[in-house]
Amino acid sequence: MKPYSNLKKDELKKELDTLLTEYKNYQALNLNLNMTRGKPCIEQLNLSMGMMDVLNSSVDLTCRDGFDCRNYGVLGGIDECKELLGDMIEVPKENIIIYGNSSLYVMYECVSRSMTNGVMGSTPWSKLKKVKWLCPVPGYDRHFAITEYFGIEMINIPMDNNGPDMDMVEKLVSKDESIKGIWCVPKYSNPDGTTYSEEVVKRFARLKPKAKDFRIYWDNAYSVHHLYDDNQDFLLEILDECKKAGNPDIVYKFTSTSKISFPGSGIAALATSEANIKDIKNQMRISTIGYDKVNQLRHVRFFKDLNGIKDQMKKHAEILRPKFELVENVLEDELKGLNLAVWTKPHGGYFISLNTCLPIATSVVDRCKKIGLELTAAGSAFPYHKDPNDSNIRIAPSFPNLDELKMASKILALSIKIESILYLLK
Amino acid sequence: MKPYSNLKKDELKKELDTLLTEYKNYQALNLNLNMTRGKPCIEQLNLSMGMMDVLNSSVDLTCRDGFDCRNYGVLGGIDECKELLGDMIEVPKENIIIYGNSSLYVMYECVSRSMTNGVMGSTPWSKLKKVKWLCPVPGYDRHFAITEYFGIEMINIPMDNNGPDMDMVEKLVSKDESIKGIWCVPKYSNPDGTTYSEEVVKRFARLKPKAKDFRIYWDNAYSVHHLYDDNQDFLLEILDECKKAGNPDIVYKFTSTSKISFPGSGIAALATSEANIKDIKNQMRISTIGYDKVNQLRHVRFFKDLNGIKDQMKKHAEILRPKFELVENVLEDELKGLNLAVWTKPHGGYFISLNTCLPIATSVVDRCKKIGLELTAAGSAFPYHKDPNDSNIRIAPSFPNLDELKMASKILALSIKIESILYLLK
Repeated sequence: MKPYSNLKKDELKKELDTLLTEYKNYQALNLNLNMTRGKPCIEQLNLSMGMMDVLNSSVDLTCRDGFDCRNYGVLGGIDECKELLGDMIEVPKENIIIYGNSSLYVMYECVSRSMTNGVMGSTPWSKLKKVKWLCPVPGYDRHFAITEYFGIEMINIPMDNNGPDMDMVEKLVSKDESIKGIWCVPKYSNPDGTTYSEEVVKRFARLKPKAKDFRIYWDNAYSVHHLYDDNQDFLLEILDECKKAGNPDIVYKFTSTSKISFPGSGIAALATSEANIKDIKNQMRISTIGYDKVNQLRHVRFFKDLNGIKDQMKKHAEILRPKFELVENVLEDELKGLNLAVWTKPHGGYFISLNTCLPIATSVVDRCKKIGLELTAAGSAFPYHKDPNDSNIRIAPSFPNLDELKMASKILALSIKIESILYLLK
Repeated sequence: MKPYSNLKKDELKKELDTLLTEYKNYQALNLNLNMTRGKPCIEQLNLSMGMMDVLNSSVDLTCRDGFDCRNYGVLGGIDECKELLGDMIEVPKENIIIYGNSSLYVMYECVSRSMTNGVMGSTPWSKLKKVKWLCPVPGYDRHFAITEYFGIEMINIPMDNNGPDMDMVEKLVSKDESIKGIWCVPKYSNPDGTTYSEEVVKRFARLKPKAKDFRIYWDNAYSVHHLYDDNQDFLLEILDECKKAGNPDIVYKFTSTSKISFPGSGIAALATSEANIKDIKNQMRISTIGYDKVNQLRHVRFFKDLNGIKDQMKKHAEILRPKFELVENVLEDELKGLNLAVWTKPHGGYFISLNTCLPIATSVVDRCKKIGLELTAAGSAFPYHKDPNDSNIRIAPSFPNLDELKMASKILALSIKIESILYLLK
């Protein structure tokens, strides 16, 4: 089929009629499909059911250093859990703090703490006239929601296949003291699936921001979330690079087991320099006596070590890989040669990122919704929900089953075709 | 024995020699006793081991409304858990938000949120010149640590057997718009074991603070933590009173299962008006996708209903009661008639509060520490750790065993006698 852009008006109209008939047929099915969020499916959840058996009333709940996990105490998390998550994200356990069930919350708290009490004795951000933040785009909507909630001005940073535009990042942070942080998903990024190149990581580690309380918010959410055994991305470990660069305190690295064990009942952690940990614990000990150590122990007893986590991730991959490939194939079949959209084929993570060639993302998402396919709202991957090109659509293939995914992908492709023609006929 | 105050100098010196010999004998034992914190003992922890069995890999982890507790979602907590904790603190489930494992953290977050984003659209407290807080004393050191951390000026409010001095509270909040809150432990208060009278609760409910964003922080930590079946304190439910008084939004009520199930792995909750819940959820949905629902389900499946909780609390009481009575009896035996100290005999909660008649609390605590008895630092029950009379000592009998408690109580009494004489001989 020829690209639509090469078709004459009457050819386009004829094609549109065919497509609208197809659309009506889907409408008649009263579908209820959802591809909005990176939510594991039931088969993935079942992979962790063994976690419900490792602790029972006849098991000793004492951790390695002899502490009774059932009681109060152990502010920063139990030693063996720090070690497990440390191994997972390639950081010594001395650099780890274990939190509750949500790494999003840990990031929120880091910004909140900086607002009220500053960073290592700096002026609390809430006392400053203006606080700004760098946001590589497209990015994670929940990151942007945090900085927006605190009234922090967000600046878009373009992404390419190597990561954020580092010339722009370096230029901005070196000049503007009101820039206090940057959101990064450095591996299998949300939504593009990009992994930052070694050069990009090294340039991050060498950043010389004007603001001494500037921190890189390094959300390593998908560190072990590969889709392929033989085709995995590699990410340089940033804490070590920052140390080498004489910049040890510049990064907060976040991780969690949310997409490894149960999403709602996992373990989140922060990895950072000893100096940052000391600063953070001064606040942590005010806010809590400690997080859920029994759940920390449960994770350690279930996974045992990094190999246990890697085995689990292979099982996740076997469930997710066919779903990603199905979506990619349907889009290929339906849109090949039409020059209507481009989309990613990630090696890991939870999303396929699609960009329409025409500014029609909003109307495509609306059109899908009208016949029962829920997609993440257009613009979600951008600060203030403003996609300058109105072209990005985030696809989350993890939750629906293969039949649902096939239909959903076809409806998406169909809606892209229809809206493209309507745009061209304007 | 006569009160020391009636003894002549030489009689005091003679008595002191005897006491110091006794003290040296304890010193020789190289003791390591701890009565610092309200920490459940191992026998109490064992009461909840059944909780490790209610969920296993063959149990369905779907909650009442059909939601899979293993996955993301359900921001405010699962329905049956709201109902369980609601029943426990006499509040409809519609007024409940379930959090993570720490009610201290929930209180911290409420203050933090008010600092950065205000209360129901009010000016964020961090933007105000001055924020003040009322602190009934003696009170809970961790409460005072939160307000101190946020730079909030704390004002002492005297307590009597009915609760805080309400004349003073009403006078202050009605005039001073910078007063934004008050810390309350209304039942079996920490450390005095006081339960607020009906009149005090009603006056709280009718408060007319100048600051529209003033909130009562009602830490109902010991709602079901009775020591006696037949001798229980009764506390009027405040949310309902506030509603009746046309003051529905003035209170945040906090609770948790920390001293019911496992201290480090329980469930915390906030109870407040629908309007406050709406306001709080606007922040909550930014900071997390939801708290640990599997642990919520675990608690519901273990306790089943309020009766399950009450049965559990009776078992706790059977372990705690002898410990409280032992301490009370030893103090009675050792100090009777000497007019050196008065102490509480609470009907519930976790503490005995002792006040020396002379300003010697600091030196008594130091003297105990020198021979291996750790007590909560003198002054801890007061803002900025300043006990105006240097007389209050908080005793936490829950963790040590009976033999340890007996020795600890004797050492405490002995140290009080010694320091009293040293003071009188000055």
